[in-house]
Amino acid sequence: MKLVLIRHGQSEWNKLNLFTGWHDVDLSEQGVEEAKKAGELIKEAGLQFDVAFTSVLTRAIRTLDYALEGSEQLWIPVYKSWRLNERHYGALQGLNKQETADKYGADQVQLWRRSYDTLPPLLEENDDRQAKNDRRYQLLDTSAIPTGENLKVTLERVIPYWMDTIAPEIKSGKRVVIAAHGNSLRALVKFLEDISDDDIMELEIPTGVPLVYELDDDLKPTNKYYLGE
Amino acid sequence: MKLVLIRHGQSEWNKLNLFTGWHDVDLSEQGVEEAKKAGELIKEAGLQFDVAFTSVLTRAIRTLDYALEGSEQLWIPVYKSWRLNERHYGALQGLNKQETADKYGADQVQLWRRSYDTLPPLLEENDDRQAKNDRRYQLLDTSAIPTGENLKVTLERVIPYWMDTIAPEIKSGKRVVIAAHGNSLRALVKFLEDISDDDIMELEIPTGVPLVYELDDDLKPTNKYYLGE
Repeated sequence: MKLVLIRHGQSEWNKLNLFTGWHDVDLSEQGVEEAKKAGELIKEAGLQFDVAFTSVLTRAIRTLDYALEGSEQLWIPVYKSWRLNERHYGALQGLNKQETADKYGADQVQLWRRSYDTLPPLLEENDDRQAKNDRRYQLLDTSAIPTGENLKVTLERVIPYWMDTIAPEIKSGKRVVIAAHGNSLRALVKFLEDISDDDIMELEIPTGVPLVYELDDDLKPTNKYYLGE
Repeated sequence: MKLVLIRHGQSEWNKLNLFTGWHDVDLSEQGVEEAKKAGELIKEAGLQFDVAFTSVLTRAIRTLDYALEGSEQLWIPVYKSWRLNERHYGALQGLNKQETADKYGADQVQLWRRSYDTLPPLLEENDDRQAKNDRRYQLLDTSAIPTGENLKVTLERVIPYWMDTIAPEIKSGKRVVIAAHGNSLRALVKFLEDISDDDIMELEIPTGVPLVYELDDDLKPTNKYYLGE
């Protein structure tokens, strides 16, 4: 059994060096090219999918669409869930990474970015950036809507979706592709490979390069590789 | 309650004047522009959707994606079904419309195109164009896979999907958009407006222009208009 993961290509805010999180920014031109390249790699590898999963954020959805279109399988079922969203970056969302480092110190920013269980500053109740104001989360229990997440909290909301929705599809023989984000994919990879809290923060998944896992019957990885390597 | 229908923009085969049917040809550049325009019209009208339906053909899926992307709601659930596919054009698929008229006569071609219940020449059993050879229909009962359809047969496979899947969503308060094809939409419109077998063939739905229906509690239309008029 195989599972393919794709991290979305560069977004407009990646380009501007801003903390993004749940802010719904689009792919940059470079990001579009990365996503198209992912489609070419999948086509060259002859990889076929039966079902796809992505987040409710435009940059991941469009990356998936380009990857499927480029490999002539845009017609497969696609499911979108907030549980595959990027880590919520709390009150840092929209701030420039360099300016934030100048203000709070590089060590503090490094901790926010790289610590497994340090939360970013949370959004205030009346902050316009609150996700509860966004139509796409209106049907979700308010207590489930984050105001800032670390990787630990991200993992705790990604894995239920993996366990209940994605994994059963794979176990039933479906070939699955997931297009998501740096940290939601990192959370999934941590779970799949049983990586320690310290080691996971060193793991970088490159953007737009399909990552293939070969899995045993318990969905434990027996092999992993990037397409095009 | 409102329902919005969008007919896909120009495809590469529309441009070449070929019978298309279930052949999975992509949008032309003009078709992409039409789809983007649909997104702008939806955005200007402030129309929000909760769920979208489309066929398993790329030109309709991409039209929907552009329409949703342009109106900033690419994140809504999208369901794809073969039941919303274009009418299957049988052995005419891939033939040039003018050449076919030269060969069979304009009257015969007019009958194939405009008669409610005249079938086109069906695909032979071993024809490469048989949809049963296409991976996207592998899980479908072989007897349901057409080898050529008239509008009557198209309607008979569109309406069950409307009744069982789309209509309940509207009745439960969801705001629905459907992106599909000239004839699958014509079938739906015939059913909604109770149009006669003769009159329906005169009805043309323009490409890329969102058609809004206002519906009563029984989903009978009380008003219809095109966006941007």
